[in-house]
Amino acid sequence: MNEVRVGLLGCGTVGTGVLHILSENADGIRARLGLPIRVVGIAVKDTTRERAAIVPMELLRTDATELVQDPRVDVVIETIGGLEPARTLVLQALAAGKHVVTANKALLATHGPELFSAADTAKRDLIFEASVGGGIPIIRMLREGLASDKLRSIYGIINGTSNFILSAMTKEGRPYDEVLKEAQDAGFAEADPTMDVGGADAAQKLSILLALGFGAQISYSDILTEGIDTVDAKDIAYAKHFGYRIKSLAIGREHQGEIEARVHPTLIRDGALMAAVDGVFNAVLTDSHAMGTSLFYGKGAGMLPTAMSVVSDTIEVGRNLLSGTTGRLPHLAFHEELRVESKLRTHEDITCPHYLRFTVRDQPGVVAGIATLLGEHGINISQMLQPHAAEGQKVDLVILTHEARESDLERSLVAIGELPYVLSSTQRIRIEPTL
Amino acid sequence: MNEVRVGLLGCGTVGTGVLHILSENADGIRARLGLPIRVVGIAVKDTTRERAAIVPMELLRTDATELVQDPRVDVVIETIGGLEPARTLVLQALAAGKHVVTANKALLATHGPELFSAADTAKRDLIFEASVGGGIPIIRMLREGLASDKLRSIYGIINGTSNFILSAMTKEGRPYDEVLKEAQDAGFAEADPTMDVGGADAAQKLSILLALGFGAQISYSDILTEGIDTVDAKDIAYAKHFGYRIKSLAIGREHQGEIEARVHPTLIRDGALMAAVDGVFNAVLTDSHAMGTSLFYGKGAGMLPTAMSVVSDTIEVGRNLLSGTTGRLPHLAFHEELRVESKLRTHEDITCPHYLRFTVRDQPGVVAGIATLLGEHGINISQMLQPHAAEGQKVDLVILTHEARESDLERSLVAIGELPYVLSSTQRIRIEPTL
Repeated sequence: MNEVRVGLLGCGTVGTGVLHILSENADGIRARLGLPIRVVGIAVKDTTRERAAIVPMELLRTDATELVQDPRVDVVIETIGGLEPARTLVLQALAAGKHVVTANKALLATHGPELFSAADTAKRDLIFEASVGGGIPIIRMLREGLASDKLRSIYGIINGTSNFILSAMTKEGRPYDEVLKEAQDAGFAEADPTMDVGGADAAQKLSILLALGFGAQISYSDILTEGIDTVDAKDIAYAKHFGYRIKSLAIGREHQGEIEARVHPTLIRDGALMAAVDGVFNAVLTDSHAMGTSLFYGKGAGMLPTAMSVVSDTIEVGRNLLSGTTGRLPHLAFHEELRVESKLRTHEDITCPHYLRFTVRDQPGVVAGIATLLGEHGINISQMLQPHAAEGQKVDLVILTHEARESDLERSLVAIGELPYVLSSTQRIRIEPTL
Repeated sequence: MNEVRVGLLGCGTVGTGVLHILSENADGIRARLGLPIRVVGIAVKDTTRERAAIVPMELLRTDATELVQDPRVDVVIETIGGLEPARTLVLQALAAGKHVVTANKALLATHGPELFSAADTAKRDLIFEASVGGGIPIIRMLREGLASDKLRSIYGIINGTSNFILSAMTKEGRPYDEVLKEAQDAGFAEADPTMDVGGADAAQKLSILLALGFGAQISYSDILTEGIDTVDAKDIAYAKHFGYRIKSLAIGREHQGEIEARVHPTLIRDGALMAAVDGVFNAVLTDSHAMGTSLFYGKGAGMLPTAMSVVSDTIEVGRNLLSGTTGRLPHLAFHEELRVESKLRTHEDITCPHYLRFTVRDQPGVVAGIATLLGEHGINISQMLQPHAAEGQKVDLVILTHEARESDLERSLVAIGELPYVLSSTQRIRIEPTL
C-alpha cells in the first residue's frame, strides 16, 4: 500500500473543502499518515457546471454507483447530504468493501442502525466525526477521551444557523425575520431554514450525542424540540435585563437511568462560558463524574471546518488500513450486547425555571390574578418586570419562575390564558440554571 | 482474552484515582471496551501505610520490577512521577512486552526519544494523554481530531498551580506569598512549588504540544520560561485598569518554518475566552488553517480528571489489544522520516506589546526621559498611567507599548535603568493581543 485512494461523493461546499485541504496540506497529511491521500474520482450530478479552481475536472463523473464500487477506491467520502441517494450509496460502498466517512447527521439519525450493521457485516469502518459540531471533535471525545468516565449531562450549541441569528438579534437588537433574511442572503441560512431554526437539525445531532454519551437509542423525533422562530427581539431584551442571554441549546441529562432530551431556546446566565459562544461558533459542554465540566469550542459549520473533520476521519481510516485493523471502536461507543438501555424521560417530568412573558391589559388585579394561578399550580415566582404603560393599555408582564414541572407549568398557562385581561398567548422560554 | 490486566505503579493521588474509576465505573468501562479491566498488582514503597478504603491492600507489593515483568500483566500504568525509577520501570515493562500508560510529562519531556524508540522496538503502545492538561484530551486532538489541519499557533493555560494562584490574586487582590502559602496548606501547591510557579512544568508540557502540533523537537530547557513569582498584586490591578487579566500562558507559534516557544505571565484582554479560565481549570486554544480557533477546557489536574484520562488511555490500549494492532499512531503524531524539522525561533525575535511598570521619583522630566529612550529604541507607547503622588516621592509609572521586538525592549530597559530617577528594576510583562 503506497497511498490511500478516495472516491468523493458530491462536490458542493464540504466536498470542495475536502479537495482544498487534501491539496493545501498534502505534506502535513502525508507526514502524519505515512502515505499520501489521493482522490481517484468525484461523483457529481453535472460534470459540465463551472466549479472552483481546486476541483480537478477530469475526475468528475456522474455514475456514483460505479465510483463506490471502483476497485481503485479504498475510502468513500460521502458529502452529498440528505437521505437518498446517500443511504443507498453508503450501503453499496460498504458492500463493495470500501470504508466510509460521512458528515451526514440526517442519514445517521435516520438510518444509523441499518448502516452500522452493514459496516459490521462488511467489516469496514463507517466514521462520522463531522456529523456533529463540524470541526469540534466531540465524537472522538465521547468515544475515546471520556471513555472511562460516566456522563451526567451534555449541553450543546450545535446549530450554527440558529446561533448566528440569535447572536445577531442580541448584538443588534433586530427582529428575527430581518436577521434571518440577511443570513439567507449571506449564505449562512438555507432558503428553507426549517430544519435549522425549527430545531430538527440540532435534535438529530443530539440523538447521536445521546447514543455516544449514554448508550441511549433515542429517536430524534422523540426529543422535545422547539425552534428559535418564536423568539422575539423583546424576549432577548427582557432576558438581558435579568442577566441572561438566549441561546438555542440541546440538552441531554441522565436521571436514574432515564434520559432527558430536549432542544429549545434557553436563557443562560450572562457570564457563563456557553453564553459567550456567538455567531457561527458551536460548543459542547459535558459534565461527567470524574472529569466534572469540560468544554469543546470551535467552528461548527462552514466549508473548511467540516471538511477538516472529514479529512481527519479519512486519516483515521488510513491508519486503520495501514495497521490492518478495522472496527476498533464500537460505532456508537458501546458494545451492543453490554449496553444498558436507557429510556427517554417523559417530557412532562422536565423541571426547570421559566421565563414567561404575558401580554395583558394594564388594570388593577392583573399581577395578583396571574400570580394566584401560578401559585395554585405550585409555581413560585422568583422575579418580575412590568414596563410602564398607561392604565387600560396592552403591556408586557415578564415573570421568572423557580423550578417548575413542565406539566404544572403548561396547565397553569392554559388557566391563565382564560383570564379576561390576558390578551394573547403567553411566551414561555426555559431557563438552564446549571450552566 | 477475557479481561485487560493492569499492573499499577504507584498508589498516590493519581494511582488511587485510577482505582476509584475502575471500581466506580466498572460497568461503563466494560460496556465500552467489551471486557473488564482488572488490576493484578500495585507496586508501592510501603505496603503497611494506611490508605484509602478503595485500595485493595492484598494487591500491594514492593517489587516494581517484578510487577512490570509479571506474565499476568498486559498494561503497566505508571503513576509514580519523576524521572527515576519511572524511566527504568517503563523501559523494563516495554522490554517485557507490556503496553504502558503514563501521565508523567517530566519523564516524556526528558527521556521521550529513548522511551518511544523502546516502544517501537518492542512493538508496544506507550500512551500519555494525561501528561498535558489532565483530563483535557488535547493530545488526542492534536494527533487525531486536527490531524488533517495545519496548526498556526497554540496557547495553553496548562499549569494548575499558577492559574490557581493568579486567579486568587486577581479575585481577592491579595499578594503572591500569601496566596501561595494558602495553596500549599490546601494541597493545591507542592511544598517546593518551583517547577510550577517557575514555569518549568508548563514548559515541559509545551514541548510535548510542540512535538504533536508542529512536529518540532524542542527541548523544554530551550523554551523562554518565566514564572509567576515576580507578579505583584499591583501589576494585576494596573492590568485590570487597562482591561486585561494576567495569566500564565504557554505559547507556541509557527513563523515560516520556525517555532516561537515561550511560557510566561501574560496580559490577556478581559472578555477573551482564555481570560475566563480560572482556578484549577486548564484550557488549550489552537488556531489552525482550516479550523480557525478551537478551545478545549476542563480540569487540568486533581485526582479524578488525571486518573480519568489514564483509564481512557488504558481503554485505548485494550481496544488495540482486542483488534490485534499496535503502533497505529506515531507517538508524536508525525512519522519521523516524513517530519520536517522546525527550528526554535530566536527569543530576541519575539515581537509583542508589553506592559512596563517603572518605579520612579516623581519629578519634572521623568515621563519625557523614559518616553525618549523607548522611542530611540523603536518602541511606541500605546497607553500610560501614573497614579497621583507628591512631588519628589516614589511612584509607579505604567506604560503599555505597541508591538516591540524582545531585543529592542531589553536594550531600552537597560538604558532606562541608568536614569537617575528610576529607583528600582522595571517590571515587564508581555501582552498577547491575538486572544
